[in-house]
Formats: sequence, C-alpha cells, structure tokens
Amino acid sequence: MRSDYAVVGKRIPKLDAPDKVTGRTVYADDLKMSGLLTGAIKRSPHPHARILSVDVSAAEALPGVYAVIHAGNVTQRPFGFGHDNIPLKDRVARCVGDEVAAVAAVDAATAQRALDLIRVDYELLPAVDDPFEALQPGAPRIHDELDIEGNVSMEWNFQTGDLAEAEQRSAVIVSGSYSSPQAAPAPIETHVVIAGFDADGDLEVISPVHMVFMYRKELADCLGLDWRRITVRQPPVGGSFGGKIDIDAHDFIAVMLARAARRPVKLAMSREEEFTGTRTRQPIHFRLRTGAAADGTLLFRHAEVVSDNGAYNAWGSHALLVAMNTVTSMYRVGTSRLAAKVVYTNKNYGGSVRGFGNPQATFAVEQQMEELADVLGMDPMDLRLKNANRPGDVTPQGLEITSCGLSECLETVRRKSGWDQRRGRMRRQHRGLGAAAYVHVGGGARIYGSDGCGAMIKIDDSGRVALISGSSELGQGSETALAMIVAETLGVPLEAVSVSHDDTDVKPWDVGVHASRTTFVAGNAARMAAAKARDELLEGAAEVLDRPARSLTIRDGVISVPGEPTATLRYEKAVRRRLLREGSSIIMTSAFYDPPTQRQDENYVGNISASYGFGAHVAEIEVDPDTGMVRVLGLWAAHDVGRAINPMSCEGQIEGGAVMGVGLALSEELPVEDGRFPAPNLHDYGMPTTMDAPPIDVTLIETADELGPFGAKGIGEGGIILPPAAIANAVADAVGVRPRSYPIRPWKLRRWIETGERSHVDKHPHPVPDENAR
Amino acid sequence: MRSDYAVVGKRIPKLDAPDKVTGRTVYADDLKMSGLLTGAIKRSPHPHARILSVDVSAAEALPGVYAVIHAGNVTQRPFGFGHDNIPLKDRVARCVGDEVAAVAAVDAATAQRALDLIRVDYELLPAVDDPFEALQPGAPRIHDELDIEGNVSMEWNFQTGDLAEAEQRSAVIVSGSYSSPQAAPAPIETHVVIAGFDADGDLEVISPVHMVFMYRKELADCLGLDWRRITVRQPPVGGSFGGKIDIDAHDFIAVMLARAARRPVKLAMSREEEFTGTRTRQPIHFRLRTGAAADGTLLFRHAEVVSDNGAYNAWGSHALLVAMNTVTSMYRVGTSRLAAKVVYTNKNYGGSVRGFGNPQATFAVEQQMEELADVLGMDPMDLRLKNANRPGDVTPQGLEITSCGLSECLETVRRKSGWDQRRGRMRRQHRGLGAAAYVHVGGGARIYGSDGCGAMIKIDDSGRVALISGSSELGQGSETALAMIVAETLGVPLEAVSVSHDDTDVKPWDVGVHASRTTFVAGNAARMAAAKARDELLEGAAEVLDRPARSLTIRDGVISVPGEPTATLRYEKAVRRRLLREGSSIIMTSAFYDPPTQRQDENYVGNISASYGFGAHVAEIEVDPDTGMVRVLGLWAAHDVGRAINPMSCEGQIEGGAVMGVGLALSEELPVEDGRFPAPNLHDYGMPTTMDAPPIDVTLIETADELGPFGAKGIGEGGIILPPAAIANAVADAVGVRPRSYPIRPWKLRRWIETGERSHVDKHPHPVPDENAR
Repeated sequence: MRSDYAVVGKRIPKLDAPDKVTGRTVYADDLKMSGLLTGAIKRSPHPHARILSVDVSAAEALPGVYAVIHAGNVTQRPFGFGHDNIPLKDRVARCVGDEVAAVAAVDAATAQRALDLIRVDYELLPAVDDPFEALQPGAPRIHDELDIEGNVSMEWNFQTGDLAEAEQRSAVIVSGSYSSPQAAPAPIETHVVIAGFDADGDLEVISPVHMVFMYRKELADCLGLDWRRITVRQPPVGGSFGGKIDIDAHDFIAVMLARAARRPVKLAMSREEEFTGTRTRQPIHFRLRTGAAADGTLLFRHAEVVSDNGAYNAWGSHALLVAMNTVTSMYRVGTSRLAAKVVYTNKNYGGSVRGFGNPQATFAVEQQMEELADVLGMDPMDLRLKNANRPGDVTPQGLEITSCGLSECLETVRRKSGWDQRRGRMRRQHRGLGAAAYVHVGGGARIYGSDGCGAMIKIDDSGRVALISGSSELGQGSETALAMIVAETLGVPLEAVSVSHDDTDVKPWDVGVHASRTTFVAGNAARMAAAKARDELLEGAAEVLDRPARSLTIRDGVISVPGEPTATLRYEKAVRRRLLREGSSIIMTSAFYDPPTQRQDENYVGNISASYGFGAHVAEIEVDPDTGMVRVLGLWAAHDVGRAINPMSCEGQIEGGAVMGVGLALSEELPVEDGRFPAPNLHDYGMPTTMDAPPIDVTLIETADELGPFGAKGIGEGGIILPPAAIANAVADAVGVRPRSYPIRPWKLRRWIETGERSHVDKHPHPVPDENAR
Repeated sequence: MRSDYAVVGKRIPKLDAPDKVTGRTVYADDLKMSGLLTGAIKRSPHPHARILSVDVSAAEALPGVYAVIHAGNVTQRPFGFGHDNIPLKDRVARCVGDEVAAVAAVDAATAQRALDLIRVDYELLPAVDDPFEALQPGAPRIHDELDIEGNVSMEWNFQTGDLAEAEQRSAVIVSGSYSSPQAAPAPIETHVVIAGFDADGDLEVISPVHMVFMYRKELADCLGLDWRRITVRQPPVGGSFGGKIDIDAHDFIAVMLARAARRPVKLAMSREEEFTGTRTRQPIHFRLRTGAAADGTLLFRHAEVVSDNGAYNAWGSHALLVAMNTVTSMYRVGTSRLAAKVVYTNKNYGGSVRGFGNPQATFAVEQQMEELADVLGMDPMDLRLKNANRPGDVTPQGLEITSCGLSECLETVRRKSGWDQRRGRMRRQHRGLGAAAYVHVGGGARIYGSDGCGAMIKIDDSGRVALISGSSELGQGSETALAMIVAETLGVPLEAVSVSHDDTDVKPWDVGVHASRTTFVAGNAARMAAAKARDELLEGAAEVLDRPARSLTIRDGVISVPGEPTATLRYEKAVRRRLLREGSSIIMTSAFYDPPTQRQDENYVGNISASYGFGAHVAEIEVDPDTGMVRVLGLWAAHDVGRAINPMSCEGQIEGGAVMGVGLALSEELPVEDGRFPAPNLHDYGMPTTMDAPPIDVTLIETADELGPFGAKGIGEGGIILPPAAIANAVADAVGVRPRSYPIRPWKLRRWIETGERSHVDKHPHPVPDENAR
C-alpha cells in the first residue's frame, strides 16, 4: 500500500477554516444587496385544519409591504415525493408550521406586522400525531386527496431466504421493539434563501442547499419557470447535517415573493421556524427479531418497521433505503425480511438527516446483537467477528462488499477500550461498555439516474491550478480534500490549488451532497481531471528537458528525471513556456465520474454504492441510579475510511458525528404535544454542548478501496450512526436493563430500571430464568 | 458566402442591456459588504516637486481611521513600462495628482478629514508641460533617476525603401504638422477598486480592469505577493474605452490599504480624480510628408512624431505601435520612414484609449491624402481607391492583408453621401464633405507572449450551455457575441447559452481586452469549444436516432436527419439521456485560441494581427463663419467587419465610436495651465451629449475573414478613428482652411480662417499660386 504521498495523508486544517474562525466568512444571511426585501411566512397554528379563507387586504395596505402572497394569488404546483405538498397550502394545513401566506417588506418588523394583519379562517380537523394511531381504521385521513389506505404513503418490502426454515434452524431468537424520536439536524445557521429576478426574468437563487442542480429543477417544475434560466449560487454553509438537502416550501415562497415584489427577497428562518418549518429526522419504530445458530451464526433478521414521516413526503421517506441495508446486510445474514410502512402524521415532516435511517436501524440491530450474544453466552465482539462482512461478500440485497475493514475496526475498539477485561465487570460502579458496528454506503448511492460529478481544471500563468467541481462544500471539508487530491495527482503544492464549487453557471453537474459521497465521487472526478492535466504538463516539460514525458516525475511542483538531479523544471515554468509563445495554449481538462453502481430494482436489489464504509464504536458510560442520568466516559471509534485523504478532517468528521450521536442517544428530542413542539429551542431540544462531548479516541482503518481516489471512501455519516446503539448496549451492561428507545433521558431510564426492562428471548438454547422470558 | 445562420447575423439586443437600462446592474461602487472601508488618496498639488517629508500622525490619530500609508511605511516596488512609476511617490511628484499618501476610514467624510490632516512638505521644482520644450537642452529632467537624454523615454524608428529616391520620383509632395490634444476616455463609471485579504492572506481584488491576468501579475510584482493567491473579479463595467486597461497607482494603493487596515477597502475615483489621476489619451504631434506620382500613386510617407506621454509610461507609450501601422500601411505606400519619440512631461500620463494612437495618426495621414488629391487635381476618393490596400497585400511592416473591404467601404460612403455631386460645391453655404479611411488590427495584436484566450463549455441537465470565457465584457457586447457564436456553432437557441467571464478563479487565461480582439480571439476559442461540444452532442444523439453522427444536423436545438422529417430529437433530451443512466456523463469541452501572428521584431516588422479591419467615413459639416462653430450634419460610415455576428451591436460599436470621434474632433480637450487641468469636469472637458450626435448612416461590409469566427473581425475601435480626419477634411472643403489640430473648437477655427491656414505643398506637378506654397 503506497504511502509516500506528498499531500494525501497529511493533516491539513480545512482551507476555509481561518475565515470561519475569524468571522470573515460571509454566509447567506450576511449578504448585503440593494433593494433586498425581508420575507416572512404566515404559518398554520393548527396541526390539521381546513383553510376556509385568507384575507390579506390589511397586510397589503401596510406601508413598506411589497408583496403578500397566498395560494389564491400565486401559480404553484405540487412538489415533494409523490407531489403531496404545495408551497402555500391551498385547502388544508396538515401540521403546525404549514405555510399559508407570506409577505415581503422593507424590514423584518414591517414583515411581522403584515403577517399579524393577515386573517386566516380555519375549520379545525381531527389530528393524529402517533403513527400507530394513524394506521388504525377510522383515523383522521391526512391526505384525503390521495388514493391511499390508512395514511400509509409508501411501503418497503424485502425478503430473501426462507424465514420459517431459518426460524426453525435457529437455536436462539431474540425479539424486541426499538424506537427513535423526532430529532433535528439543528445546524448553527438556520435556512436562509435569497431569490431575485433580473430584468430579463432570469432567476438567481442564493441558497445553502446540498443538491443545487436538482433544487433548480424542482424550483422550475413547481413554479413553471424555464430551468435553463435559473442560477443557483451556494454561499458558505453554516452547517446542514442533511437538513438543507431537501427543497422546502420556503424556497419556493422566496421565489414567488421576489416575482410578486419585483425585487430580491430574503427568507431567513428563525430558530423556532428551523425546528417547526424545516426538515427533521423521522422517528422510526422497529419490531425486530434475530435468530442464530448455537455457534452464533446469524440465521435471519425479521423487521417490521413504521416510519413516522409527518405530514408530507420528502427525501425523508427514503430513509428506509438505508435502514433496509442495515437490516439485511450488517453482518452476514442469510435470510431477512423487512416490511416497512411510511406513515403520514400531523407533524412536521422528516428529511434526510445525517445517517439517514441508519442510527435508527443500527439502534435496533446492534442492540439485538448484544442481546443475542448474551443469550448464547458469547462475547458480543466474538459474535460480531464471527458474522462480520468480509471483502468479496455480496449481500442478499446485492451490495458488493469490496474493501472491508469491519473486523479490524471491531478488534481495534475491543483492544483499545479494554473490552475483554472490563465488559460486564463494572455493574457495581454502574458502569458499562457497549459496542456497535455499522455498514453505510461509502462510494455514492445511486438514488437518481446519475450518481456522477463533473470536474474541470485550468492552470493559469501564475501556476494556479483551479478546480471547478460540481460538488458542494457544506463544512464537511470536501474543498480541502479535493484540493489535496488535485495537488497529489498533479504533483503541485497544495497552496497552488483553488476550488470553485458555488455557482451552477460555472460548475459542472453533480447530483449533490448526500450519502457520504463527495470525497469518493467528486474526488474521483477531480483526480481524473488532474491526471489529464499532469499528462499535459509533463508533455510540455518533456520538450524542455529533452526527455520523454513518460520518464518524468513531478512532486511538490518540481518536474524531474529520476536519477538526474540537475534535470529539473518548476511546473510554473512549464506552464508559462507553453503560454508565452506563438501558438500558445494553457492546460484545461475535464472529467466526469459516475461510480459503477446500479439503481436498486423493484425488489430493492442492486449494488447501490461503489464501496461500503464500516466502523465500530465502544462506549463506556456511567449511570447515576438515583436520577437515571447517563454520562459517557469514553468513546473508542475505529472507522474503515479506505484511505484518509486528510486524517485531520476524517477525525473531525468522525468526532463531530459521534458528538451528534451522543446527543441523539442521550438528549435530543422534539416531543409533540397536541401536534406542537412545545419548546422549539436548542436548550429544551437537548442539543449537547462542548461540555457534553466525551473523550473520543479515533482510529482510522485504511483499507485502500480499489475504486476510491487514492483508496478513499466516504466517512461523512459514519460517526453519528453508532452512539445510540453503543450507549444503549453500555447501559444494558451497566444496569442490566435494555433501552427500547432513545434519547435515553434520565426519567426514562429510571422508569426502565424500575420496571426491569429486559431483552426478549423468543427461543433459547438452554432453560432460562423467568425474568428473561416474558 | 453562407448566410443561412440561425443566430449569427441576427439583430440581438445586448444580453446585459435590460439590467443596465433598468438600473439593476450592480457595479463595483454599488457593492455592499461588511466592514468595507473607504479609501482616499492624498495627491500632489504640484506638477513637479521634491517630497521632503510626509507627516501622517494627526491623520492616524483621527477616530475612524484604520490606515494611513505613504512611501515611508509600505513595501512597494516600481511599476509601469520601464518601471518608472511607484504607487506612493517616495521622492518626487512629477505631475499634479501624483499619489503621495492614502487613508482608509469608516466613511468618506472621515477619510477626507484624514487627508486634510496629512502634512506634506514639498520643494517645488521647475516643471515642463510642453513636449517640445521638454526635448530642449536644459529642460527640467523629469526622471533624473533614469539614464535618458532630453526626457525621451522611448524611440520608435521604422524605415523601408529609399526615401531620397522616392522623393525624387514624386511629382507631388505635401507636408504639414498635425496635432492632437490630451483627451480622456471619460466613462460614466469612474475607476473603482475594492481589495481585501482573507484570513489566509489570499487577496481578492474587485476591479473593472480589462486585462485581469496581467493585472494580477503586476499587483504581485509590485507588492511582493504570491500571484497564485490573488483572485481578480470583474464586476459589470460602466464604460472604459481603454481607460481601465492599465493598472494604476490607486490599484496598488487599495491593496496596501487593505493590508494595513486588515479590512477590505474601496477606492472610488471622483470625477476630478478620474481626469487627473487615471489615464488619458496622449497628445501626439506629427510632422508628416507624403509624396505621390502624377497619376496619384503614393510613393512615400515620412513622419516625425512626438508623443507627449506625461509623467510616466504605461501602455500609452505604445500608442506609436498603432500610429506606425497607419503611417506605413494605410494604403499602399512603398517607402516610409517614421521617427518617433515618447517624451516625458509634467502632466498626467497617457494610457491606451480606444483607437490607441490611430485617431491621431489618421488625422495626419488622411488630411494629407485630401491635400495631395487637391494638388494632383484628383478626386480624393479616386486617389484613395487607386492606392487602396487589397487582399493579399503584405505591407512594408509585414502586415498580411487577407480580407479587405477598403475599396467597398470607400465606394459605399462615396455613393451614400452624394460625394461626387456635392464635394467641393457647397462652400457658399459654408458646408463641406470630407472623407477618411483607416486600417486597424482586427484579429488581435500580439503585444505579449500570447495573444490567446481560453474557453470552456459545459452543458447541464437543463440544457443550459455555459461558456466560461477568458474574455471580459466592458460594455462592448462581447458577452452577447460570444453567446451567439456558441449558439450558432452548437445549434441551440441563444437563450440556452450563458456566459461567465468575471472571475480569475474560474475563467481560463486571456491576455485581456485590447486591440478590438475579443470577438475574433475569444470568439474563435468559444467556437472551437462549441464545435467539440456539438460533436459530442451528435454522437450521443446518433445512438438514439440510430444514424451515424456525421449524418445529423442540429439547429435551434433540434437534432435531425436531413430528409427524414420524423427522425428528430431535442438536444436537451440527448443531454439528459447521456446523464440519467449508469455510466453517465455530461458534455464538457475546452479550447484555447491564439491567433497565428507574430510579435514585431526589433525593426517593427511582423504580422501582428491575424486580420485587419478597414473602414471609411464621409462627414458633412457646416461652419458658422462668424463664430467658427462646426456642426456635423451627417456621417456616413462603412466598415469592413468581416462578418457581423450581431449587426445591431456592430452598428452600436460604430455609432458609439463615431460619436466619441466627433467629440475628439470638435470639443474634447484637457488643456493644461501651469501643469494643472483647470476644469476637470465633463462640461468643460467638452464631452458631447446626445444632442451633439449627428445622424450616422452605418453600412456593414462583410468580407468573411478566413480566420475570424464565422468570418468576423474586430470592430471595437473602428468608429472613433475617422471623425477627426473626416471632419477636418470637411472643414477644408467648406471654408478652405486646413485644421492643424483638434479639437476644432470655434475660436481655433476662426483664427485659422483669419490667418488663412492652408495645405503645405513642397513639390507640385504644376506651377501653383503662392498661397499654396508657403
């Protein structure tokens, strides 16, 4: 495994970090422009209500108001998955926060006064916020315009193998229910969108969205615009974590306001709106059973899943895609069945938050692994290692496992955490160790016709190497990783490389940021374009050095002939020599990389990603038995990153994800009361602070993926997936009760301790005490 | 000559016009940004003075002042041609307006107060503002640090043929002196520059400069910066006309202020500073002799030239390059000699203003053509046609004349103006007709190692075709012309094409806007990149239509098989079919075009341009004999544009240039008194208004240049070159006196009428009356 890289593998602070930490970065909300109006949205205060009338006359009459819009005075079409949503609700509000009208005014105070002057008459309708109630016959119909039964918007059913036969063969079967809450990505920067038309009617939208080209198409489809005449610019993004992947009603509303007001309009979500009006992580409820042979060989998994996706479907309805992978393909499981329903409820609806269904699924699957091990009398690590995915495996869903460091990850955290010496031996101190592992797409995820990304490179007379990438930097460090890949491939110093990626007028197409794909997919495109540029550079240098191009090398900007120390040429000179002469030229190259993957077929089979990432965590926790408070004492994390392009950034991704995972595990939740989030603020939501971050020990396992750029594969989501499962397992180790849902808030854990919540064993190789049978 | 184009040749309003006329365009001075400081410059009030001391302590102490800089507290190096200038003058001020210190403050009022608090002690030095005086022994030495004689900074000497022999053979020789004033480009938008460093020390400069890549290099060279870490962005430009081609002291000062203040700084020139502190059109004085045979065959031209370039040398010192072309190559002139000196004077210095030496040279050459014709008793048009350049000519300077519509231009304006019926027959009404013709580079001008330009094209899923061009749009309409070239070449509708050209991080290298080269050079690059994209598009369509790609055509976005009306495919579908599949890709192409030209050798011989533009004007004027006021009654203009990509834009360029030429001819002037411009404002300067624009009749002569894109060649400067010469000739026709200089202001013409200024004839085929002999 080659490791003599000049740039790749070095610890490089993110290129955009200095501006961010010194406050110089100009985010969307910081942008100043002439004539910019402030937009604001009138939202439904009711979880379910018929909109009888909207009277905007008083708002329109208010001085300083440029536009007041509602469904009755705009042209809009349905949007969203299944086209079940519309920007300004025309007939029914289906959740608190639903957009009913909007204004554009000279300033925020005027906009707010105008909102207050809008009169909306509602007829209240019965609402349902529990998905199981929503499934009952006679439950309120949330989308009566759709031809669906029992508020079920989608079903996901997968089956492989003979379940009955596998049950029969199993020596052990454990079963249980595992639930997750409505959570939120809660980035520091709320959603901000600025829209404006030029005098020709061309639209510019400034938006921190992930998927700029698809966003543009959706704007056009919904609003009847020519999408060729829409430019999307992406300012620096103050965090997204998936929350900004979807197009939301407010994006369309900003454009409609700009059209009505004939001036640019900014819509910046308040923190409250960020919780109530933008996308959340959908609660998913698993009823899971796992069976194994007496030697620990996994024989089946069987999951019945209900995804509580709220009032509408967006990308969030597809979190089952990832959850299904974990059920069928985490470890070698021959037989599996999954039956999942996505259910409408009268709540803010789910989106595609970091991990995308996987923290929820892993919470079920990986608790059940330790439950199973306990019943089998095996060490859970041994059980995992016995069943671990290995290079060359093809899972029942068709996932082709190529590079795979799962066993090494497990062995690493086992060793570093002192697992063998300490697990199951600290109950007296109310301490415990718990583990979890994951599989997640690491080489893109073909959820659209193309999963590709374009890259263009041009080198100017200064020697500046400009990469124009289709990708988007959301804070994940992709700009730095891409610059490093280009610098390494071309053989130039990192500081010679700039990356542009913020303007659809300039950057080549990319499907967008999702599925931890940027380093892999955009990185491969950048690498391919840089390799072409390197060839051209060396061809030019060959003339000067009078050696064949193939005999030349370049490193740190110096082109040389191995073995001839005096035959060198700085690359900038080669560039200028090519330019500053008759018949001049410069180096411009391009490449498009689409990973060799398949869209899954109607049976959910297909190799959706070009590589898969694996990892394992061990969490050590301590429970205060009086309060039920859980403190995380340490987290050992080992992740198969293929190759760490920038180890500092990989570690940052893993640590950041892990802290978010600790938040999910212990505190983050948006409880609903009467269809409302009663406290949509960061404090009550339970956002962890720096003080809540445990010590995290990160090990990067480098498996050098065959297809990844320099062997790299995705790591953007890995860190968040495991803490809920690992911490739940650690709680079970510490206090002997089995967390059935997260966040594991103190009062919940106290109740579980009081009621003695245990693992459910449906089949046992040996006689078992009553307490475990239930 | 093919003319069935779908887009080329159509009259298309400029794409950026709607925003400009509705006030939406955001110019540099309109940009708003956080923390932006206002810069201001302390300038020398003296034309020549030693700087004894600069005391900035009181200015630095003023609240709201962030930086005060002067030569004593900054690091700077000389800049300009011959490195004879420095941003903040360290020792000597050589003209009124010379930059001595600068401040950055919270607002303009504070900046002005700070300037007032800076104390500069000067020792006055003798100054000289007349170039002929500057040439005298004993004249004040303006650059005593340079090893030059008599304030001569450059000499340009060209000679071909045997002058004495040609004089001998000549039947007629006329001679005379012809002078031009210090004039100004005077765009509506004054110079504005914004500079700021990010937290990494990377510099961004927002500047309406023409030549962004060279500008960047000069910033780096002067200020000791890494030019790879400088980004230049070019906002929409509110007119330049060459005034913004040079890098000026204020550009460096803005960067030094930003560095000192650690915040972004804007320097916006006032109208007074625009006249006194930015580049002007240098006065050029010609002593010219022309000889011809009795049949009118031109035998020689002999010019002695003094260019009064002011206190420093910038691009303006090279106006002789163009002036020389006109002396040696306008019409077939076998023998020519030119001896030119560029002279320092204590005045604001010359730049590269539209026409770049050619209006001045043509004023001399083309008056002398009519003087010669009159003495020969020939019609001036006949004389011109007899000697006209023709396709295939190679001039003594090595200019290779390929496409050439000069004769057609002359015949057109002759016919349309009623020349044969009216010239010389309106003296009783004090009316006259005068003509002039020009040659000017029309296919680039190799003044730098490369005269090339890069282009990149990418097509996204909407079918939007994005051209990223190295070129810059200064209001000349290049964006529209380039979009048309791409649309025509690719076969897509014009509205599908966008052009990006404003950011050095993104756009490929280009030498910059000069020499009427953009449509030709950037147009060829765009055409080449579009042709590659077309090939790729048709290859993809070939799969769908099941026909070989070479059998397909595309027009208006429809790909079809000739003769098979049903076999069609919209190009957007071909694009999306390529993208939305496994193994997807998009179309990305690039091209670099460097015209096949030569840098002129040390003897000024070389084919500097890939094609040459020609044109002819006839002006009709009326003189008020009491006041000397000249009114232009009409202007007939015929220009060989090769091919009119956008006839509306070609006409606009010609009309706009012609109005500027009328301004030069009749009113525009910056007179100097004691080294000062006493009235640096648009009114006293003599800027023509709409009311001063004569009726202009434009004929586009299309010669379909072999190398130009679709046959096009440059037309950006043509319109301005001829009016001074044509109007002077018309004045001679109307009142019988010969204007020796422009502007032909009323009091000057009255004096010439009173003194009876006539043509000077050194040799005459027939006995002549005394009055013509002198």
